[in-house]
Amino acid sequence: MYLSKLFLPFTKNLPSEAKIKSHQLMLRTGMIKQSAAGIYSWLPLGFKVMKKIENIVREEQNKIGAQEMLMPTIQSADIWKESGRYDDYGQEMLRIKDRQGREMLYGPTNEELITEIFRSSIKSYKSLPQLLYHIQWKFRDEIRPRFGVMRCREFYMKDAYSFDIDDESAKKSYNKMFYAYLKTFERMELKAIPMAAETGPIGGDLSHEFIILADTGESKIYADKSIFEINPSKYKDNDISLEKMRQDFSKVYAVTDEKFNKNEFDNNVKKNNQIITKGIEVGHIFYFSDKYSKPLNCLIDSKEGNKTNIKMGSYGIGVSRLVAAVIEAKFNNNKMKWPKEISPFDVSIIPMINKNNKDSLTKAENIYSELKKQNIDVLLDDTDESMSNKFNKHDLLGVPYQIIIGSKSSDNKFEFREVNGESSVIDLQNIKLKLKK
Amino acid sequence: MYLSKLFLPFTKNLPSEAKIKSHQLMLRTGMIKQSAAGIYSWLPLGFKVMKKIENIVREEQNKIGAQEMLMPTIQSADIWKESGRYDDYGQEMLRIKDRQGREMLYGPTNEELITEIFRSSIKSYKSLPQLLYHIQWKFRDEIRPRFGVMRCREFYMKDAYSFDIDDESAKKSYNKMFYAYLKTFERMELKAIPMAAETGPIGGDLSHEFIILADTGESKIYADKSIFEINPSKYKDNDISLEKMRQDFSKVYAVTDEKFNKNEFDNNVKKNNQIITKGIEVGHIFYFSDKYSKPLNCLIDSKEGNKTNIKMGSYGIGVSRLVAAVIEAKFNNNKMKWPKEISPFDVSIIPMINKNNKDSLTKAENIYSELKKQNIDVLLDDTDESMSNKFNKHDLLGVPYQIIIGSKSSDNKFEFREVNGESSVIDLQNIKLKLKK
Repeated sequence: MYLSKLFLPFTKNLPSEAKIKSHQLMLRTGMIKQSAAGIYSWLPLGFKVMKKIENIVREEQNKIGAQEMLMPTIQSADIWKESGRYDDYGQEMLRIKDRQGREMLYGPTNEELITEIFRSSIKSYKSLPQLLYHIQWKFRDEIRPRFGVMRCREFYMKDAYSFDIDDESAKKSYNKMFYAYLKTFERMELKAIPMAAETGPIGGDLSHEFIILADTGESKIYADKSIFEINPSKYKDNDISLEKMRQDFSKVYAVTDEKFNKNEFDNNVKKNNQIITKGIEVGHIFYFSDKYSKPLNCLIDSKEGNKTNIKMGSYGIGVSRLVAAVIEAKFNNNKMKWPKEISPFDVSIIPMINKNNKDSLTKAENIYSELKKQNIDVLLDDTDESMSNKFNKHDLLGVPYQIIIGSKSSDNKFEFREVNGESSVIDLQNIKLKLKK
Repeated sequence: MYLSKLFLPFTKNLPSEAKIKSHQLMLRTGMIKQSAAGIYSWLPLGFKVMKKIENIVREEQNKIGAQEMLMPTIQSADIWKESGRYDDYGQEMLRIKDRQGREMLYGPTNEELITEIFRSSIKSYKSLPQLLYHIQWKFRDEIRPRFGVMRCREFYMKDAYSFDIDDESAKKSYNKMFYAYLKTFERMELKAIPMAAETGPIGGDLSHEFIILADTGESKIYADKSIFEINPSKYKDNDISLEKMRQDFSKVYAVTDEKFNKNEFDNNVKKNNQIITKGIEVGHIFYFSDKYSKPLNCLIDSKEGNKTNIKMGSYGIGVSRLVAAVIEAKFNNNKMKWPKEISPFDVSIIPMINKNNKDSLTKAENIYSELKKQNIDVLLDDTDESMSNKFNKHDLLGVPYQIIIGSKSSDNKFEFREVNGESSVIDLQNIKLKLKK
């Protein structure tokens, strides 16, 4: 993509309405545009990042055998009355009357609807376990939406649901998701800590929040830094190993301030292992057994021939929120560096362009088409701004690699720079190799 | 995917509420499930098909240089008041009050919102032309939703918008989209006829509907069959050639019953070239100039230094509707055959499984893993139903190729069958070659 063609309403000034750095950066680089309080449009740059995050989430869900489907945004109030949550949910639920006067709502979550689908689809234990997920827009009518897409009203979320015959089998599904979550955040180069959590209004027994570290996070975190030594890739993909993995995580001290107790912290964690920092919740998983299958009468034939309530869990990842969370974690000293797998482009080419000399642009265009042939997604800065203006802009765009065609480049060697990393003057063949790594 | 694991609530009986074949098939094969009047959940089988259609639409939009973005589903009523359509739109618009009492709505289309985004983003003719699109859920509160996803309330649609400095340039954008539409439907193996259309409530000068032929279609069509001889691939990707392509299509008689005139038909079309059939609208493109940029005051600096209203067009494809439309076109004699690019699976393996003999299943599992290694998406029917039951089911599932492991197969040769096509007994190497074609 040529920068001059990219739909990128870039703003030089810090937007006054934005209080946190992700919100500021997303507005400045034209990733999003607010269309109403807490409701955003995703412009091409922001859309590309969100889509890449969505795809990582999808791939890791598919790897553990979860099946993708899609539930609608607008739901009937009836099933929420069956579960008893229609009244409980309060004003955060966006309630709607259609032209026939029927009570509808914009789904804030999908436990009711998935249970309703399941109860009319699956009758026998033979079809279990099942893991279903969808990635869909949700709406929560926050009283004070703020911090851009971090706490907005219309948001994009992956929610998965597990269906099992009993607690023991359900725990295996839970562990699989636990594992998928760790892999998901790892691919985004995020340090995510799973923390035992209160189950809250959604109910149930077993629950973890996944919190990524960021100085500007909303939750205060107290943890033993040895938690980062646990490497999920070292566990095998079987039920026993995954249970051990979750146990290993559970043994290490890590809590948010809700559960924090100073004595406990000091007794359990060696002084120089103690980390006190902030974090952002990007995922939440719950096991809630028959909390919904009971009121919604979702029954399954067991092996013994009885009808029993299906045991369920639910598993959320905030896809749109993750875009902002990654920025909070990765934007430092006024410089952004997108993690490789979710960067809007693989590499930027930044040629020095003068009115009288278009040589660098010609070189840049040649490199551009060479890299495109290798399926490398390139942003070519073909604008005629000064190099220092360009660098300032690219610092915010955050593409992790830059090819600079300026004073240091010769006929066939160019400056290749990794943001916050090394810089070298190399030829195109070596640039390709570095990008393919 | 093993059939026994697939979340596929298959029903043997014809669902009584479904009047047309696509609706019947989608319910029977568990592609969708109704969750409220005119609102559907997409179960894994249906979701896979819709996602593949979505990806074809996306790729063809990207090829003509359109940039993807995403507007929210919930919009403020304010911009609709600016354009004057808030009152015009009537009861089909789902109107919502949020907790602050603000008037909101679920977007039935996005001309207002995209104009609002554009006017605050792009100021100069130098950034033109621009083509932006998104693929997003829409809601139209139909008084009588029917025919499944063919005429439902919550539906998935690609809508694109073009922005140009003047009529002449706008026509070029229009022609590009015209071309992208033909390519899009071609990849789905559909015969799509572009027909000059009334511009209707959306307004403007230049408009075409894209209608695919299906006996059960809602619109009656009168056309000269020579229209199918025009091959869009023969035109070059430049403005002059694309203008000629649209002109060539326009010269051939093709109208819906609204515009039909018997004398005209007989005078213009030779008797044995006349086709009278039915069709389904799957796309609609409009050029409406400054219809929205004027009331919304979307101005751009022209080369001459004046401010002028941007010239816009809009371009829709019904993504969810296409799933049903393809079935209407391709489901015949109680047999479905999905077009190759959008089939939920590339191939089915159907082994004959007896209680006492699992040989066929073992063979099937070996073939399954061999094909998976080649990135071929396989459905393996591991159920122990009779072969005739299996065949009946697979006739409905519509995967275009089948590998049958039964009486005709030997140790290393298997029956390979194309639905409605040839059948041969060949080895795995040749099966791979046929599937890779």
